[in-house]
Amino acid sequence: MRELRPEPLTRDAFAPYGDVVESGQAAEEMNADSFERFDDLCRVEAHEGRIAISIARCRVATTLPHRIEMVERHPHGSQAFIPRTPCRMLVVVAAAGAAVDAAGLRAFVSNGEQGINYHRGTWHMPLIAFDAGQEFLIVDRVGDSPNCDIQPLAEPVMLLEPVTG
Amino acid sequence: MRELRPEPLTRDAFAPYGDVVESGQAAEEMNADSFERFDDLCRVEAHEGRIAISIARCRVATTLPHRIEMVERHPHGSQAFIPRTPCRMLVVVAAAGAAVDAAGLRAFVSNGEQGINYHRGTWHMPLIAFDAGQEFLIVDRVGDSPNCDIQPLAEPVMLLEPVTG
Repeated sequence: MRELRPEPLTRDAFAPYGDVVESGQAAEEMNADSFERFDDLCRVEAHEGRIAISIARCRVATTLPHRIEMVERHPHGSQAFIPRTPCRMLVVVAAAGAAVDAAGLRAFVSNGEQGINYHRGTWHMPLIAFDAGQEFLIVDRVGDSPNCDIQPLAEPVMLLEPVTG
Repeated sequence: MRELRPEPLTRDAFAPYGDVVESGQAAEEMNADSFERFDDLCRVEAHEGRIAISIARCRVATTLPHRIEMVERHPHGSQAFIPRTPCRMLVVVAAAGAAVDAAGLRAFVSNGEQGINYHRGTWHMPLIAFDAGQEFLIVDRVGDSPNCDIQPLAEPVMLLEPVTG
């Protein structure tokens, strides 16, 4: 079985798939200097619909290694997941396209503070979390037309512990 | 000087002004039952523009009592603030309208887990936080036309410690 070991999540490495939601970039001032504001961190898209804010709460924690047998994509909009309390996130992605390029799948691990925004059409593993109760803010598209394509992987992928240190 | 003592933030009490972002409502299942999803918690609006995701980080902590001399509103969109790590939020609001009804100003305190979404046009005190470094996720409208009206209060308002217990 193919194995994938997550690499550190950075804006540059993740750019082909989406955005990293983090406060590291150049800031603007806000409210008479009492806040720094890190503006417009994501490409938020909603076609044939509108943007909604939701929360997902983990019921069943995932342990590694984790077997991946399918990926999904949202053809009509972007989808952001941002931890509500700091926690490591693992994501697996492949470039947008009519069919997933399984050979091009990449895995990333966040630094605990980062969130991510999948661009419209990016293939990705459904959300996993390592602790039951962990909550994620979701900013994505809602609408009447279906917005989730699922594609089974011809060869399952085993997601391994990230490299540390 | 007029004084305002914050009341507990609830969805019902805040409904005339905006939405409360919290996970308490009825959930749907997601990702083969491994997550609960609390869907579409806010009325997200962007006229003459688009929705963006940003982060604000507190540089100057506010202490109470806190003197309020102005309020603002965003005529073209909603604006959500959601703490990135749990923290109490204080908000002061008045109903949308051409001019602020200062007699109708109300103050709310969150339970530490909640975020808020101001509806388009709701008058509100600019964001304050009690700890430097505290970060808030912002989901609001960006666009070319101006989107912030400021109105001084004829009589300043003193924001007091919330009632506890």
